[in-house]
Amino acid sequence: MISKNNSSCSKQTKFNLVQVKGAWNRQTEQSQAAEGKLSDAKIYESKSEHGVSWTVSSPIVFTYTVIQCRNILDPSNDTLLWGHIGDEELKGILINSKPPKRFVVIDETVNQLYGSRVAQYFEARRVVHKIVPLPTTEENKSMELVTKILEEVHGFGIDRRSEPIIAIGGGVCLDVVGLAASLYRRRTPYIRVPTTVLSYIDASVGAKTGVNFAGGKNKLGSYIPPVATFLDCSFFQTLPRRQISNGMAEMLKMALMKHIGLFELLEADGRRLLNSKLQSCDTSKSSAQEDSAIASVRIAIETMLEELAPNLWEDDLDRLVDFGHLISPELEMRVLPALLHGEAVNIDMSFMVYVAHQKGLVTADEKNRIIRCMLGLDLPVWHQDCTLALIQKSLRERLKHSAGSLRMPLPTGLGRAEIFHDMIEDNILCQAYEKWTDELSSGNK
Amino acid sequence: MISKNNSSCSKQTKFNLVQVKGAWNRQTEQSQAAEGKLSDAKIYESKSEHGVSWTVSSPIVFTYTVIQCRNILDPSNDTLLWGHIGDEELKGILINSKPPKRFVVIDETVNQLYGSRVAQYFEARRVVHKIVPLPTTEENKSMELVTKILEEVHGFGIDRRSEPIIAIGGGVCLDVVGLAASLYRRRTPYIRVPTTVLSYIDASVGAKTGVNFAGGKNKLGSYIPPVATFLDCSFFQTLPRRQISNGMAEMLKMALMKHIGLFELLEADGRRLLNSKLQSCDTSKSSAQEDSAIASVRIAIETMLEELAPNLWEDDLDRLVDFGHLISPELEMRVLPALLHGEAVNIDMSFMVYVAHQKGLVTADEKNRIIRCMLGLDLPVWHQDCTLALIQKSLRERLKHSAGSLRMPLPTGLGRAEIFHDMIEDNILCQAYEKWTDELSSGNK
Repeated sequence: MISKNNSSCSKQTKFNLVQVKGAWNRQTEQSQAAEGKLSDAKIYESKSEHGVSWTVSSPIVFTYTVIQCRNILDPSNDTLLWGHIGDEELKGILINSKPPKRFVVIDETVNQLYGSRVAQYFEARRVVHKIVPLPTTEENKSMELVTKILEEVHGFGIDRRSEPIIAIGGGVCLDVVGLAASLYRRRTPYIRVPTTVLSYIDASVGAKTGVNFAGGKNKLGSYIPPVATFLDCSFFQTLPRRQISNGMAEMLKMALMKHIGLFELLEADGRRLLNSKLQSCDTSKSSAQEDSAIASVRIAIETMLEELAPNLWEDDLDRLVDFGHLISPELEMRVLPALLHGEAVNIDMSFMVYVAHQKGLVTADEKNRIIRCMLGLDLPVWHQDCTLALIQKSLRERLKHSAGSLRMPLPTGLGRAEIFHDMIEDNILCQAYEKWTDELSSGNK
Repeated sequence: MISKNNSSCSKQTKFNLVQVKGAWNRQTEQSQAAEGKLSDAKIYESKSEHGVSWTVSSPIVFTYTVIQCRNILDPSNDTLLWGHIGDEELKGILINSKPPKRFVVIDETVNQLYGSRVAQYFEARRVVHKIVPLPTTEENKSMELVTKILEEVHGFGIDRRSEPIIAIGGGVCLDVVGLAASLYRRRTPYIRVPTTVLSYIDASVGAKTGVNFAGGKNKLGSYIPPVATFLDCSFFQTLPRRQISNGMAEMLKMALMKHIGLFELLEADGRRLLNSKLQSCDTSKSSAQEDSAIASVRIAIETMLEELAPNLWEDDLDRLVDFGHLISPELEMRVLPALLHGEAVNIDMSFMVYVAHQKGLVTADEKNRIIRCMLGLDLPVWHQDCTLALIQKSLRERLKHSAGSLRMPLPTGLGRAEIFHDMIEDNILCQAYEKWTDELSSGNK
């Protein structure tokens, strides 16, 4: 990361930063005179006949908590109000100081289903609160909605440090509120409460926020994680079946990329999980006897966190989580609103499994097991608008925006994958497309 | 930062993250089986009868370069086009690949003075470019201006990774462009070229971006540093004298807080520096014989970087750079546009010097030397609208927004300071105010 200044006439000095009596002082490694707090930040100074230059290297640690719990809207459950405070001592101080204040943005549809329970929660806990229902749909995912939220937040008035903004809804709601919070006073803590399977597994556990702009998906945004995410599967009970499938596509993605156990679970039990809306069959069981609903969701979150935590700001372009996301953005926008996000992702994954098979990375049996698993989850595995031309265009775009390398994740067996950097040979792509269409188009036309 | 979960029924496991064949895997410290790339990120898992929770801790390293140079608009000078690339090898590759592309936002007034030279620079270097002049005044510092920039950027089309947006202008221009860039595709690199003394010393070397919102100063923004800042003092030649004083107030702030050498330099030579618009008297001198213009600017930048680098996101509320910024925001907004930012800051500092004297922290002689130095820089040291009521209100607000502590930096001699946490006793404040008004109001009424 640090600039290497190779010009012969300059010399670089590295400085540590030490705080003594409130003032930060530069110190070379050789002359560590004063005792004091040492910062992780460094300053590198170069002098040449042209002038001076300084390179600052400053690490910022992002910390956030993801909590799985039940009955988050039960007034006896502390989580929604205090779950973001990990320190029990601090929590005690806050509970006993001034009355808490919370600003809540809730998706309009979620509000119809759960709004009165949310209001009751805050009333029962004597929280000064404001609940703002908003139409957080893909069409409204814009800076205008962010501005609307900011005006409401500003009018209500919150303490930037101790009163997090709460978002309750699907991915669009969490993304839009996240962006508003990350802008307000340069960063106001916010909390994500996902209510869809897709946002539960995908949007809620990372740092990304965003809105659409100038016809482009998520063209504006930030990488500011929530202070906390609260996960409660019971919201899924009111979701339409298609929305469950939609979210399970992202779960399958993680299974295919890195967890054979999750794949086998979805293969054996996926349909039943879909039918039961991922609800645990017996809540009285102890955690030792975890059922497949609980296990599948837990593994999906764990594998996602594993991939996101080391690459929170997406500085590394090689990302397994991009599987299913090379062709699908183009496809999704082309047929909008015909395909949900997870459906488009699944069509992309289905095609890529054929590519992997054509490249000799997965056997015919493995390919067939994966496709059967997808069909068991009621996910589309082929689409007429996913043409060879669209696929080729998407891959060329990918090449352009990924610093000259394709960086294409492909399965190399069940539950394992590798990233491929070279463009796929044209004949492999054509053969895979032909086979994919031959075998899968009939059921999907 | 990590949550301490003291509840007796939960147990926390710390996981490192190791990358093997492209996939990140959790590993406990005890069971480091696989060899691979170790991430600085950690995941802490807690299980209890209520469910599972994960705390993610992920450090992001921000790196940026501040380069002092001369003749930045001379087409033979590489800096404006390639100065942000520290790695000579990478620079070589980029220079020899596709023609570079740059999007430039320039303040309208700066454009009148330097616009044709900027255009000539890019034409001479055969850069595909677009230069957008905008009225970057305090009144226009809003999300609307950010949106306008984003629309232009999007229409022009840039490579998010290799084609930084360039901002040329004063603090408002740098702040607004910085916010636009930090939003575009969740982070697009940008370059700051400050043209005023104030932005050169203050806004340009840190990470803050921002716009005004709902009548509040910088209520929206981000902490995203530029990829590089290019400092060229020659822009100061076209500044009105008052703008030079304005910027020198922030320079004096750093002198008072932590650098007696800079104070003595400003005390001895400040007026001449003001008269000469901080231009070096002899450009042929070698760097060994640094003159006071070069030295004062260099020390101001170095001391500012020392304070900003360890606290880039302002997580630490104890900040010496806040000196002069406790009363001044209220004063500046109250009398707008009568006082420039640095002028309001100076009035705040002048009063605080009296407070420090009243508390026995600085002697009468030190106090008088500081005030004389301020007057030598043509800076106002008193203002009729800076009433005791306004001061008291500002300090109360400060107390409210600084997590219950005043965190007031005060000089404790020349070039040194401490942060005081307790509210100033009323009698000290009144006596300081009375003395301040007695001694300084006559020349400023």
